[in-house]
Amino acid sequence: MTQEINLPDVLAELTEVFAQYEEALVNNKVEVLDALFWNSPHTLRYGVAEVQYGHAAIQAYRAAQPAQGQPRTLTRTVITTYGREYGTANVEFQREGESRIGRQSQTWLRLPEGWRVVAAHVSLMG
Amino acid sequence: MTQEINLPDVLAELTEVFAQYEEALVNNKVEVLDALFWNSPHTLRYGVAEVQYGHAAIQAYRAAQPAQGQPRTLTRTVITTYGREYGTANVEFQREGESRIGRQSQTWLRLPEGWRVVAAHVSLMG
Repeated sequence: MTQEINLPDVLAELTEVFAQYEEALVNNKVEVLDALFWNSPHTLRYGVAEVQYGHAAIQAYRAAQPAQGQPRTLTRTVITTYGREYGTANVEFQREGESRIGRQSQTWLRLPEGWRVVAAHVSLMG
Repeated sequence: MTQEINLPDVLAELTEVFAQYEEALVNNKVEVLDALFWNSPHTLRYGVAEVQYGHAAIQAYRAAQPAQGQPRTLTRTVITTYGREYGTANVEFQREGESRIGRQSQTWLRLPEGWRVVAAHVSLMG
């Protein structure tokens, strides 16, 4: 497995999908965000001030949010792939008007339908 | 892949390793914690109030902490495996003397040396 870390074609794929996610988040493309989370009851998301278990709960949360993007600047990004089906994307970010550093962690899985987030965690550094 | 979610023997393995990690954390067995994180510069950890990139930085952080366990109660635990080499462990926890809910996310990879954490994120819900 160790020799399969960051295979260039796999890393390029996940990097592109991650960029789609970020663009969708910043521009409030809710349907893209929903599609990039694994459509499963196993999927979970720990947000800054909330937790959701299962894709339906994540989707309901997003639907209830104000219809606006979340402008932010990624200050450090680490995307790593393990073999051809697994990857993690971790970023530090700065939100406008927020002095604390944000961190977002995503665990990605490559499924027949494409790369999907199976678990996510977002927080502001305490 | 979807039919390979939570294969019973794989899930049992990761559940056992996760329990070893938790026991080590609560009882301050630093060498066990260090061993269960992937010994790689790719490994990263977002803590409640700090970030570390690479196993060496994580190890240095733990070495600098007070020599005491971190008593806590896990209030919700979700461990999921994907195929035979990949898994996530997500918990909500309550620390003594802390009213905020804690969340800990780990992405695990099965390597020749055993299951290892490749990325972790801990936060208190804001």
